[in-house]
Amino acid sequence: MDINNWQKKVDDWTGQYTPQYWQPHEILARLTEEVGELAREINHLYGPKKKKKEEETKELGDEIGDVIFTLTCLANSKNINLKKVLKRTIDKCYIRDKNRFAKK
Amino acid sequence: MDINNWQKKVDDWTGQYTPQYWQPHEILARLTEEVGELAREINHLYGPKKKKKEEETKELGDEIGDVIFTLTCLANSKNINLKKVLKRTIDKCYIRDKNRFAKK
Amino acid sequence: MDINNWQKKVDDWTGQYTPQYWQPHEILARLTEEVGELAREINHLYGPKKKKKEEETKELGDEIGDVIFTLTCLANSKNINLKKVLKRTIDKCYIRDKNRFAKK
Amino acid sequence: MDINNWQKKVDDWTGQYTPQYWQPHEILARLTEEVGELAREINHLYGPKKKKKEEETKELGDEIGDVIFTLTCLANSKNINLKKVLKRTIDKCYIRDKNRFAKK
Repeated sequence: MDINNWQKKVDDWTGQYTPQYWQPHEILARLTEEVGELAREINHLYGPKKKKKEEETKELGDEIGDVIFTLTCLANSKNINLKKVLKRTIDKCYIRDKNRFAKK
Repeated sequence: MDINNWQKKVDDWTGQYTPQYWQPHEILARLTEEVGELAREINHLYGPKKKKKEEETKELGDEIGDVIFTLTCLANSKNINLKKVLKRTIDKCYIRDKNRFAKK
Repeated sequence: MDINNWQKKVDDWTGQYTPQYWQPHEILARLTEEVGELAREINHLYGPKKKKKEEETKELGDEIGDVIFTLTCLANSKNINLKKVLKRTIDKCYIRDKNRFAKK
Repeated sequence: MDINNWQKKVDDWTGQYTPQYWQPHEILARLTEEVGELAREINHLYGPKKKKKEEETKELGDEIGDVIFTLTCLANSKNINLKKVLKRTIDKCYIRDKNRFAKK
């Protein structure tokens, strides 16, 4: 699956509903909720509550997926092309953050 | 750019450093920081502080990119395949959330 | 209830357990989870999902309380005096942020 | 400083401005930003970036103060009494969470 294709799939699904996308602040609140669920999963897997074994990372993946889905809704609602964004992001890594961490 | 390819690009870049990936709680703290920067941008564009015009969504894209980058580090650090994750995410939309919102 | 008294109450309650306080990153993950629940409540009350009437702010208060409780655990775990902190916070408002917003 | 007194101090300060309080979603976005700054401080003090010594907790306190300030604005904007909220929060600890953690 290509990144454009992913964005399109999200747009197709949301396109069934009205409004197709919420307002930015509303999507952000949903994002905060989803990041909270990811945080809970991380405490369950690696934290003091430890209710799960480390192998059980399927749900960790699911929570990551929900966060990316919500970010994609935000991007779609403002016609932001994620493929271009991610290219800029990785380029920035190689330029701006060149000496930020300890090299091997 | 394919999603596997994106994950590989992040892995290549982080692979120059040691440790390649932080611990999950440390990545989560960074994610929280990046989501905070996204929130500030949303208040600047659409909120009461309004320091920017709505057209200026380039930085909004950049903040979304930083959040996805951090999520990808988390996924990579636990060998989670994002393409599989996103397929499950979109499938879940069509099944679980079928009647969640108002249809057109 | 005085702020020192509030901090003491939290310390008394957590003092029954071992460890009394988690590590900072673990408390932060819990904080992120609690902020996520607050965000969901805000979308329920004021957002597109609107499952509740605006009058029903009791649960909004409860979510705010849970966030402050978690912050107090973080402060207690590092012997940070909240009363002093909040005095500095309000002093900073009057000095640093004097011209930040539109005066009446 | 009593908790009612703290809430009043925040109300007095914000009372100079118009609007006195933002909309709930806007305050939530600001809260997310402040929690992000707290997360960065925690990574600086206890995380892999470690730019600070553990003794330097003054700024950790300041970040906690900023988060509580923002929560207080949210409470004030909806006439929520924090003293009552915190009493309910601590009561809930003794009742609901009685057997949640390992007793000493």
